[in-house]
Amino acid sequence: MIKKKRDPRPIGVFDSGVGGLTVVKELMNELPHQSIIYFGDTARVPYGSKSKEAIKRFSLEITHFLLRNDVKAIIVACNSASAVALEELKIVSPVPVYGVIDAGINVALRETRNKKIGVIGTKATIRSESHKINIKSKEPSVEISTKACPLFVPLIEEGMFDNHITREVVKDYLTEFKTAKIDTMILGCTHYPLLNRVIREFLGPSVMLIDPAKELVKKIKLEFESYGKEKKLNDEPIEVKYEFFVSDVPDDFLKASGSFIHLEPTSVKKIFLDELEYKQVLQAEIKVSPQVN
Amino acid sequence: MIKKKRDPRPIGVFDSGVGGLTVVKELMNELPHQSIIYFGDTARVPYGSKSKEAIKRFSLEITHFLLRNDVKAIIVACNSASAVALEELKIVSPVPVYGVIDAGINVALRETRNKKIGVIGTKATIRSESHKINIKSKEPSVEISTKACPLFVPLIEEGMFDNHITREVVKDYLTEFKTAKIDTMILGCTHYPLLNRVIREFLGPSVMLIDPAKELVKKIKLEFESYGKEKKLNDEPIEVKYEFFVSDVPDDFLKASGSFIHLEPTSVKKIFLDELEYKQVLQAEIKVSPQVN
Repeated sequence: MIKKKRDPRPIGVFDSGVGGLTVVKELMNELPHQSIIYFGDTARVPYGSKSKEAIKRFSLEITHFLLRNDVKAIIVACNSASAVALEELKIVSPVPVYGVIDAGINVALRETRNKKIGVIGTKATIRSESHKINIKSKEPSVEISTKACPLFVPLIEEGMFDNHITREVVKDYLTEFKTAKIDTMILGCTHYPLLNRVIREFLGPSVMLIDPAKELVKKIKLEFESYGKEKKLNDEPIEVKYEFFVSDVPDDFLKASGSFIHLEPTSVKKIFLDELEYKQVLQAEIKVSPQVN
Repeated sequence: MIKKKRDPRPIGVFDSGVGGLTVVKELMNELPHQSIIYFGDTARVPYGSKSKEAIKRFSLEITHFLLRNDVKAIIVACNSASAVALEELKIVSPVPVYGVIDAGINVALRETRNKKIGVIGTKATIRSESHKINIKSKEPSVEISTKACPLFVPLIEEGMFDNHITREVVKDYLTEFKTAKIDTMILGCTHYPLLNRVIREFLGPSVMLIDPAKELVKKIKLEFESYGKEKKLNDEPIEVKYEFFVSDVPDDFLKASGSFIHLEPTSVKKIFLDELEYKQVLQAEIKVSPQVN
């Protein structure tokens, strides 16, 4: 069998903020020989409370930035952006664009036994009805309950992963899912898996919690492996580069990103993101010694 | 006495979002013959979790926008922007620029009896230490306690002005002010006066709550009256125009702004905010029949 030539270009990942670093972490574990360029739009975070038009505009800007950096694929780690902008990004991008909505839905449909699925996310994600429309088109008999949970992200950003206030908010938001007797819940926001424990505690062990980011990375891994894009045993060792760009560097940036991923940034510098607008950018380069699964 | 000619130019007011509409409401009540141009940066809200550099850049952009609209004065209704950007805005602006920090401090210093003052605000406001520095320079003997309360704005935006969750969060954030025995509290964020009741309930009636926006409008009223800028009895009737610009129009914009101000917007249109970046903008024009105080 002829071995296909490895494509050394990085995978581009973007999110409204640092939440998408959970996807980067998964990618680093599952596809350790892929370089990654991450962009977090920390100057305009959050997206979930903004209009569809704004989210589309922001997503297009970032997609162009990633394309200028010669990525071979783009992962939209942000559920809000995936929900409202994915189709337009696919049209403009010459490389594949992956969103998190589909990945979560596919697993939910596979896993549910009683055909009652719950979805939680930001206002923009829930209002888009992209989960509902997508699930109904694949499996019309499924009952879907959805709920926007705008307090979850601020609670997580306050580090309140599992305190009395978070438990009260979880109860307030999620009681209706108990009534609806769902057996599968899509955590439709990159931050939400950080509330896994308290959500599981409230909904009980019979409800399966689905992290779409994890599912998406699994799917991409399969694709990359089948197309020979991931490194195979006995290939020569390679250098992997991780680069992290953000549109703003708040004072607590490293602390905030530390909740998602543990990396030592090696340099902080400013660049021009595009000709139109100046952005302050953090760049961290990390050389990872090659390691074969 | 010679009557000075009235200056028909509008007052510019800006905020990171819709919270600054509380200032507009105060202005409409206190200075009913002044036209107002409001700008809410809803595409990039919130400012309180962003870096000093980002907040300065955003504030400068909006200041230039207001100046192009021929305002005679600029009110920085956002505490985070007032705390970190005011000095730079004053340098670039040919018209007076007013911030909310000073106004709150002056009243707090006048009202405190035990010289123990509390300040709550966003992360950016509290981290700037602008209240501490300013108070200490005026009255070194005063003890100041400060605390960032990042959950307050999301709670207010969820409409949770006074429920069990809000009361728990208030208790969590404000217990240390009880320990510090403050008798005066500066509500250092335009949203916070909407939590007045629950904060008062927790801190007790002996603690005076100060709304800097209200104080600033009182101060401006005095200035405008003394300079003959406000309409006087027996002047000819005048037309007043209110214009509201935002950088994004989320689906719940009217609902959200309704918490702060009750106005019927008469038109929604899009404009180019500046040569650099396209922004979607809501404009509402309201003709108010002239009325003399």
